[in-house]
Amino acid sequence: MPELRQDIVTGRWVVIATERSKRPEYFSKRRVEVVPAGGVCPFCYGNESLTPPEVDAFRPDGSVANTSGWQVRVVPNKYPAFSLSHEKIIEEPLYCHRQATGLHEVIIHSPDHGRNLGDLPVEQVEAVIKMYVKRYQAAISNYEVRYVEIIVNHGLEAGASLEHSHSQLFALPLVPKEIAAEIDGFNRHLEQGGDCIFCDVVAYETRSARRVVSENENFIAFCPYASRGPFEISIMPKKHLSAFELASPDTITGFTHIVHDVLSKLRNRLSDPPYNYWLHTRPVRVDEFHWHLEILPKLSAFGGLEIGTGVMINVVKPEEAAAFLRAD
Amino acid sequence: MPELRQDIVTGRWVVIATERSKRPEYFSKRRVEVVPAGGVCPFCYGNESLTPPEVDAFRPDGSVANTSGWQVRVVPNKYPAFSLSHEKIIEEPLYCHRQATGLHEVIIHSPDHGRNLGDLPVEQVEAVIKMYVKRYQAAISNYEVRYVEIIVNHGLEAGASLEHSHSQLFALPLVPKEIAAEIDGFNRHLEQGGDCIFCDVVAYETRSARRVVSENENFIAFCPYASRGPFEISIMPKKHLSAFELASPDTITGFTHIVHDVLSKLRNRLSDPPYNYWLHTRPVRVDEFHWHLEILPKLSAFGGLEIGTGVMINVVKPEEAAAFLRAD
Repeated sequence: MPELRQDIVTGRWVVIATERSKRPEYFSKRRVEVVPAGGVCPFCYGNESLTPPEVDAFRPDGSVANTSGWQVRVVPNKYPAFSLSHEKIIEEPLYCHRQATGLHEVIIHSPDHGRNLGDLPVEQVEAVIKMYVKRYQAAISNYEVRYVEIIVNHGLEAGASLEHSHSQLFALPLVPKEIAAEIDGFNRHLEQGGDCIFCDVVAYETRSARRVVSENENFIAFCPYASRGPFEISIMPKKHLSAFELASPDTITGFTHIVHDVLSKLRNRLSDPPYNYWLHTRPVRVDEFHWHLEILPKLSAFGGLEIGTGVMINVVKPEEAAAFLRAD
Repeated sequence: MPELRQDIVTGRWVVIATERSKRPEYFSKRRVEVVPAGGVCPFCYGNESLTPPEVDAFRPDGSVANTSGWQVRVVPNKYPAFSLSHEKIIEEPLYCHRQATGLHEVIIHSPDHGRNLGDLPVEQVEAVIKMYVKRYQAAISNYEVRYVEIIVNHGLEAGASLEHSHSQLFALPLVPKEIAAEIDGFNRHLEQGGDCIFCDVVAYETRSARRVVSENENFIAFCPYASRGPFEISIMPKKHLSAFELASPDTITGFTHIVHDVLSKLRNRLSDPPYNYWLHTRPVRVDEFHWHLEILPKLSAFGGLEIGTGVMINVVKPEEAAAFLRAD
């Protein structure tokens, strides 16, 4: 059973999820998990029995659960970092801990083993985004869930342990600190008499155009002014939309097209780089926010300065990164 | 000239230091900087002219600056993330930025290309620690400096760009958020009627002994209760010591021995893993703190959950990690 432990000084939460690894001895031989090459892939057609039973799927052909025929398939993570089961955790008087209550799901993007969101057909990407909304809504119906984060780890250096393109959904029993920091910034701006700070950024970046990577009627993609690393990209709805799970069909379509375009550009211009992306939206008990997607290519390692201080070093100006990606 | 940019929502600072890379095109070919194998190493004897002129060195043989004969050598980073020169930065009305004023130095641990702090003689490690103190004191004599962080990136996966063992010193014009978070936790504990929170942790970990990795008269090394990753280790003075730069000769000796012991254990038990370490001490204008060293082996990649929420997943229990490292 995973367990949430809190750092006593900083308040930082860590999930201790030992089901995800072998014993400590494991690490004396292998450094990082290796993407199996040529092995049996549990996310391919015909191998549905190798995953835990599916919790959702789009099956346009009406095929039966846990067989082939699906367009997008959702299964619980085999080694969940969050789960709804409860178990006794060893108490330690000085420290704070809690059950890692929640969900940890895997959204398999397509039956195609070799293609990812940057080179799948746009209709397939739209099916994935629709599944995000569906699973998001299911996750928040659980009364213990406070925040839902949907992420992609693409490539070994970005933490992917399986090559077949997939997303992960984490439903957490708390509002994590990076979200809390964004909510704080959002509220501070309102308290100071401002409007939505994300709307301000969208307006400014649209007007300045220096860091824009892609744009359509409903969305803008740009390299943020204070990009944490080379080619970081934010995708934001142009209209003030608090909640991802309430996105209209038009919003979903616009989002699909810009995600597909941006990931295609990254893939084509940077030779399919490893990247992480994550969706930030309003926490379950918060009304106002401005949802968005953050994409961070993994082109350099975080070092002691970055981890130890939180100050990032970025060796490529966002203005130059955007110009490079635009020149497609 | 490097430039500090602040994220408008979260307040996070990023250094844009483009001197450290080639043009964006660079990234379409290469993913990470490669440690040169068999090439000419600028940190070896005879190649002193390949670095910027040295700012400090221990030369027990009385040899001349920028020649061979040194025991520990300090040079400015060739591509500094922080520097004392000032240059005009392009203003953008919506965003906050400032000069990346400060220092960025490289402390070369020894003339020996192939050995690092885990397998150098303990006398050599002591010389390195003494140089830390000396350079730390020099750095804070600059009136623009607010915080000094000394780090090691060991191994390619941990962000090292040169194989020859070295530390880096960053003198920053601000107190970075991870330090601010520790100061906040420290002060909150005092306000609630507690003692130094680090002293409490030292006492608890000593008594419980479950997570202790190494110990001597003046220091304790343990895997923190909420370790962010497998085999994370904190080294803390047992006595309440606020300021690293005021360490007594006995303290330096005790620190040297425990650092050497812990890094040897990591090296021997985990096959010379990549790791980052960083020293946390009181900021320049803060009186009370409890300095310590944090060591984080890089055995897995940070993914979208870790970067996007700040919640870490750790697949090895710190109690098991400590037991594994102790069994030497």
